[in-house]
Amino acid sequence: MQTHSSSNASVPDAEISDAAIRSLPQTLRHRRQQLAQQCSAPIIFWSGNPHSRNFPANTYPFRASSHFLYFAGLPLQNAAIRLESGRLELFMDDPTSASILWHGASPSRSQIAETIGADADYPLYRLKSFTEHAATIPVQDAATRLQQSQLLSRMMTPANGLQGIDLDLAKAIVHLRLIHDPAALAEIRQAAAVTVKAHEAGMATTRTASTEAGVRAAMEQVILSHTMTCAYSSIVTVHGEVLHNDRYPNPLQSGDLLLADVGAEAETGWAADVTRTWPVSGRFSPTQRDIYEVVKTAHDVCIDQAHPGVEYRDLHLRAATVLAAGLVDLGILRGRAEDLVDMDAHALFFPHGIGHLLGLDVHDMEDLGDLAGYAPGRSRSDRFGLGYLRLDRPLAPGMVVTIEPGFYQVPAILNDPDRRAKYQDVVNWERLAAFSDVRGIRIEDDILITPTNAEILTAALPTDREAIETITQG
Amino acid sequence: MQTHSSSNASVPDAEISDAAIRSLPQTLRHRRQQLAQQCSAPIIFWSGNPHSRNFPANTYPFRASSHFLYFAGLPLQNAAIRLESGRLELFMDDPTSASILWHGASPSRSQIAETIGADADYPLYRLKSFTEHAATIPVQDAATRLQQSQLLSRMMTPANGLQGIDLDLAKAIVHLRLIHDPAALAEIRQAAAVTVKAHEAGMATTRTASTEAGVRAAMEQVILSHTMTCAYSSIVTVHGEVLHNDRYPNPLQSGDLLLADVGAEAETGWAADVTRTWPVSGRFSPTQRDIYEVVKTAHDVCIDQAHPGVEYRDLHLRAATVLAAGLVDLGILRGRAEDLVDMDAHALFFPHGIGHLLGLDVHDMEDLGDLAGYAPGRSRSDRFGLGYLRLDRPLAPGMVVTIEPGFYQVPAILNDPDRRAKYQDVVNWERLAAFSDVRGIRIEDDILITPTNAEILTAALPTDREAIETITQG
Ligand SMILES: [Mn+2]
Ligand SMILES: [Mn+2]
Repeated sequence: MQTHSSSNASVPDAEISDAAIRSLPQTLRHRRQQLAQQCSAPIIFWSGNPHSRNFPANTYPFRASSHFLYFAGLPLQNAAIRLESGRLELFMDDPTSASILWHGASPSRSQIAETIGADADYPLYRLKSFTEHAATIPVQDAATRLQQSQLLSRMMTPANGLQGIDLDLAKAIVHLRLIHDPAALAEIRQAAAVTVKAHEAGMATTRTASTEAGVRAAMEQVILSHTMTCAYSSIVTVHGEVLHNDRYPNPLQSGDLLLADVGAEAETGWAADVTRTWPVSGRFSPTQRDIYEVVKTAHDVCIDQAHPGVEYRDLHLRAATVLAAGLVDLGILRGRAEDLVDMDAHALFFPHGIGHLLGLDVHDMEDLGDLAGYAPGRSRSDRFGLGYLRLDRPLAPGMVVTIEPGFYQVPAILNDPDRRAKYQDVVNWERLAAFSDVRGIRIEDDILITPTNAEILTAALPTDREAIETITQG
Repeated sequence: MQTHSSSNASVPDAEISDAAIRSLPQTLRHRRQQLAQQCSAPIIFWSGNPHSRNFPANTYPFRASSHFLYFAGLPLQNAAIRLESGRLELFMDDPTSASILWHGASPSRSQIAETIGADADYPLYRLKSFTEHAATIPVQDAATRLQQSQLLSRMMTPANGLQGIDLDLAKAIVHLRLIHDPAALAEIRQAAAVTVKAHEAGMATTRTASTEAGVRAAMEQVILSHTMTCAYSSIVTVHGEVLHNDRYPNPLQSGDLLLADVGAEAETGWAADVTRTWPVSGRFSPTQRDIYEVVKTAHDVCIDQAHPGVEYRDLHLRAATVLAAGLVDLGILRGRAEDLVDMDAHALFFPHGIGHLLGLDVHDMEDLGDLAGYAPGRSRSDRFGLGYLRLDRPLAPGMVVTIEPGFYQVPAILNDPDRRAKYQDVVNWERLAAFSDVRGIRIEDDILITPTNAEILTAALPTDREAIETITQG
């Protein structure tokens, strides 16, 4: 390893397409003009700095703050932009001679200023003269957050605690970032396309891989080979019932289902988020097939009903009802589907929400708490079957959301004595035991709300059972 | 993506081998007995917490502090251990019910305590009653560092600023961690073995890959498929002259050399660090071959001369002399090799040190500044040809170091007017121009100092030119 100095040089990414670079100044100007309509205060966004891993010079891959990326377009390290009345000012240092020595030539500040259409550019130390009355959003890295606090003379709390002009700014950002512009959609489509290839590779590799780790590695290879990165920690597991599984030790055994929730992130930061579940053997068992079809029906119904004006919460409840009805048909639940959903019986098997916003963050703008996910005046339900819903807004053209119904046998839920007592009359536990080879299934796609309905951005990857078997068998 | 709660559950890694787990209590007991001989104060090591990436729940893969790993053996999150007179006390919380719900069952604190041979275990909140007079080392993540400051009532500065009992502790740790015990060596050997496979895959993939990113992805796939991670940001580049290159956009062109500096890190944290340089076409050009042989001679001579008692700084100077002599033979430099090294002329083409310590960190213990790298009383030289040397100690049995000579044509060095003037009489610039297809070559292996000489831990990967051509051609 050769890391001679931890550099603050700010290298815009050569892999960002020429077309995107050419249109970047117009895209950014439009975004900040829209922001200026919502927010009259001057605004400063910091990009952040890399986090150290086990020693200072050994850092995690740098990820610029999403708000910075939205208005600056490039993943610059240790930079800031100031927006006021549609003007853009860039604050960053030119590459030092030490940086050029070890990191190679990189663009000067003035070249970057031209690329992003900045009206002025200054070295970073000048920022302190431009901070009066400025609003901001705290970044994730503590060192930069401390700079924010010092320059703006107020505490920067990591999330949720925003007040005054910062809270006003956050609301204005949500207003903008909820509805994606063409430049954003082009990037999300790129991330989605690479994600589709990663899943195809995962299915194909299952024939020869012996462990979860082998499949994960093949999927991430596709993402890395397209100079993208993972938008989140991949889930690749034969224990789909462990909902947030970020380890990959298990062997693949015939009879297992493999659940893979893997998404690419473009170099500009825009993300995709896709889940597929396929049989290690290449053939679903009859019980796996039955449950798969129930989950797929929920998935299809939700996408079919996703139109402008539809409440996302209603899609969630619709999925819950379809799942409940399917489980009644299979003899696992007893009763009317609507009644089962009213009593949250669906959540025994589908304990999470139907999905979330997608954009520069895989859970878009989740650094702002529920400000983006929940419409003004709404807040999280304390119902078992609704509390994990991340999005409660009417759909609108230009929104990108995931649709990700699932079925899981989570021991901590199904073995909980209180739940077993509460739901003893509606669950046929003997019948459920016949489905023990279905530990977890999820089907997740990314959809764009259009003026008339929804477009599946990840449609190139089949959800259809036979098609998945075909890819898996090769 | 499904991340429902950012959990503090502490999951020891199932991939750590059964044998390693069985002998873990003895290994750890021996380490802390050795530490107790050096340091009489009570000692607390914190493991740290994950860093957030773009929003709080979306974290980078967790890496426990190396000092914690050395004495606790397992990558536990949000845990602490207290050592005193050979005793080991574990402080961590049991998995919460929310954690079990989303992350699956994981071992209890008492199970982990048994696995590591702890004498007592407590919930984390109890730690505050055990902090009197305790020494510690600051971790990398700011949130945990703040806890350290608060519990120990003193500022925790990130590095280099250690004082009093903390500095005494750091010196004692260096004393221990410089010399690897059998358990450590077993892990380093595993990391080295996987690293060798990654490089073989990189060479083989060069036949079909079209970009640097494609080769990087194939190499990291091998590491991930062995449930390991990268010990540092991979360098995979046709511009080897950019010494710290962590981007992969360039196409592979016949005639290019590809330099790959990629190393695996075992789940226990132990690292390997290997560089190879191979021709994209599978055949070195005559000029590439000539320089490669010079670098390889420097590599071989250093490893040959690496014995207990030898000063590592002398190996560096020996490599510099071999390189200078080789460049004289090729007509690039003029004069006696020893005189050229005295005037730092070698550093025009070999501007970094011959290597560094390797262990739980790829630059082992670099979080302690130069405390590990430089023997007491020694400090960095301000000479151009020595200032980047990371290690200046006599070699001793049990030390693992890298040997990584290189040749680079760094524009920022070779085009610097002052350097061109200083070295105008000793560089044949016209002759150098004939070697323009050699932008950067490095050959790096990891060696263990034995009682009699040195063992190359990465010997399974050839350095031999013909063998590399053979693997690359397939
Ligand atoms: Mn190295
Ligand atoms: Mn998702």
